[in-house]
Amino acid sequence: MKIAVIKETFPGETRVALIPANVSKLTKAGLSIAVEAGAGENAGFDDPLYTEAGAVIGSRAEVLKDADVVLTHHGRGDELDLLLPQLTEGQTLVAMMDPLAGPQVAEKLAQAKINGIALELVPRITRAQSMDVLSSNATIAGYKAALLGATHSHQMFPMMMTAAGTLKPARVFIMGVGVAGLQACATAKRLGGVVEAYDIRPAAREQILSVGARPVELNIEAENTETKGGYAKEQSDDFIARQQAAMADVLAQQDVVITTAAIPGRKAPVLITEAQLMKMKPGAVIIDLAAETGGNCELTVAGEAVVHHGVTIVGPQNFAASVPNHASQMFGTNLTNLLMLMNQEGQLSWDFEDEIIRDTTVSHNGEVVSVRLRELLGMD
Amino acid sequence: MKIAVIKETFPGETRVALIPANVSKLTKAGLSIAVEAGAGENAGFDDPLYTEAGAVIGSRAEVLKDADVVLTHHGRGDELDLLLPQLTEGQTLVAMMDPLAGPQVAEKLAQAKINGIALELVPRITRAQSMDVLSSNATIAGYKAALLGATHSHQMFPMMMTAAGTLKPARVFIMGVGVAGLQACATAKRLGGVVEAYDIRPAAREQILSVGARPVELNIEAENTETKGGYAKEQSDDFIARQQAAMADVLAQQDVVITTAAIPGRKAPVLITEAQLMKMKPGAVIIDLAAETGGNCELTVAGEAVVHHGVTIVGPQNFAASVPNHASQMFGTNLTNLLMLMNQEGQLSWDFEDEIIRDTTVSHNGEVVSVRLRELLGMD
Repeated sequence: MKIAVIKETFPGETRVALIPANVSKLTKAGLSIAVEAGAGENAGFDDPLYTEAGAVIGSRAEVLKDADVVLTHHGRGDELDLLLPQLTEGQTLVAMMDPLAGPQVAEKLAQAKINGIALELVPRITRAQSMDVLSSNATIAGYKAALLGATHSHQMFPMMMTAAGTLKPARVFIMGVGVAGLQACATAKRLGGVVEAYDIRPAAREQILSVGARPVELNIEAENTETKGGYAKEQSDDFIARQQAAMADVLAQQDVVITTAAIPGRKAPVLITEAQLMKMKPGAVIIDLAAETGGNCELTVAGEAVVHHGVTIVGPQNFAASVPNHASQMFGTNLTNLLMLMNQEGQLSWDFEDEIIRDTTVSHNGEVVSVRLRELLGMD
Repeated sequence: MKIAVIKETFPGETRVALIPANVSKLTKAGLSIAVEAGAGENAGFDDPLYTEAGAVIGSRAEVLKDADVVLTHHGRGDELDLLLPQLTEGQTLVAMMDPLAGPQVAEKLAQAKINGIALELVPRITRAQSMDVLSSNATIAGYKAALLGATHSHQMFPMMMTAAGTLKPARVFIMGVGVAGLQACATAKRLGGVVEAYDIRPAAREQILSVGARPVELNIEAENTETKGGYAKEQSDDFIARQQAAMADVLAQQDVVITTAAIPGRKAPVLITEAQLMKMKPGAVIIDLAAETGGNCELTVAGEAVVHHGVTIVGPQNFAASVPNHASQMFGTNLTNLLMLMNQEGQLSWDFEDEIIRDTTVSHNGEVVSVRLRELLGMD
């Protein structure tokens, strides 16, 4: 089986789909790896490191020519439109495709007779954890969100007893404690902040305590807050309104607020309205990790830092690319684990009895095969 | 005694010279405080907070009119040229003046018959610690340098054992461990980095260990590395060359380097040459806290982040202004302590027997009185 790693073309992208350590592991398993020249450069992995690990370096055309599998971060939008004409029927593309927000990507791949594996669809089961790119990216996003909050804050996070008096620690509040939120809690705590967190899922309480933060209780009832896949479930408008009212007082106490509420494939829920924001402290900071899907704050602008009513609202985009070395390592390891699962004596296994392969395959042999995407596309 | 706090005019300045808590303390001691409208706004202290604390709010002309003492962060350059014509003979200006780099400020004040107190000249004695603005600013600079290093790093600082494999912690190296360097060590350590530090002063070894970092030994001899004031002393060119050679290997191992070597009133020593930088890891980051005085790295550009040979070099300026709330609290508390020292029954004491008053006063009754500045100006 021949694997091609292409150099990313997405604007501002610094990551690469495999790092040299991944190449070593895959070549030892009998796979051949070809890497487009310069693919790892921005992540700190120069071509010679790939050669040493057993890869062949070539132009994009050269690495794609005989490839069975093509790996990239961005298998959608302009990047897919650029790549698709360079691919050959029967090749397999493994990438992030955002298929729940844009299921048409599966039709596009099926028409081109490219087999597509969308990494967002890795199921949240124990066996697939090591392939879960969304968790990897969320780890980075949570860590960087805490750093960004500290950078924009008008206060230092730790309590400091200095010759110039005692400085109070910053109060940091995390809304939504999935992987990103928990990592944000842990990082803000490391930095010395007084950290509180909230999640509509009752199970989150223990997780919040486990990283040393304090769970905030709003005393409003919710039911069915978690999908069986372990994601937060979309709530009714009424519930959200009650949540916002009870939250206003909590928000008014904070120096830094990090919001992380996302629903796969859907617009992010608004957790902070302009009315709530107006009650916040002057100089407070909001880091909105849902900026790319509409934002958890009404006033968030994706990719910018804006100031309203004295509050700075930051909406980071493609956060993982800001830590290219570790992000590439995690992504590459996730892909390596997936390839090891699918590798059967040098051939890709399309065993749809396997939940991981079944769930992640969006197109195969010219057909849209994902049940979820067929539903979204109205094909069944 | 009447104290005036003016709104800062320095570009990008967010701080204020006294916060409301300082005003409370000073008014309780019998002093009158007038604050220019909006002076504390960018630091999170609106006018009503000052009024509640006992201050009077007014225009600049109003607050300056009967003032005995005028407080500001920037008592030099364009800001001083703007302020000086607004002052009246016999008034006292308390500010940062950078007098060792530009002793002419003392002559300018003496000619205008303004009494000048330069906060950089607070002696490094125990009794004056609570008035030491340089230490306050260095605390903030060290903290923010570690944050900025983490923000620019291609790696996350902590070791993380994730489902996508184990991520190695970042290696962070601090050059120069005065107040800023020690705070940078402590903050990088909090964030989970593997932290090493170096200082030419042998006494620094214990201080490095005290914040959990590892002292780096270069095995090169130095003598007389510390002034009796506790600052690092300027070294010979030969010593610096040997230091640079031994340092190259250490630098080549690091993910983040924070440099803090400054000599009061002088150009900063070059600790990292282009030749050394070329041996560093691609993706490494240098945060140069000496950027404003020429930089510890040859390629630093003050106020910018530049990339050379794959290494990002950041040269922050006026760092304290990026944490306006805590920075104003520390500066204001330092000034409050100085004013409490000089307040004798409602009058400013010019007791030159007191080392603190003697050392910090640059001009008095139309004369340049600072011994250090008279020397620098060739007046004695």
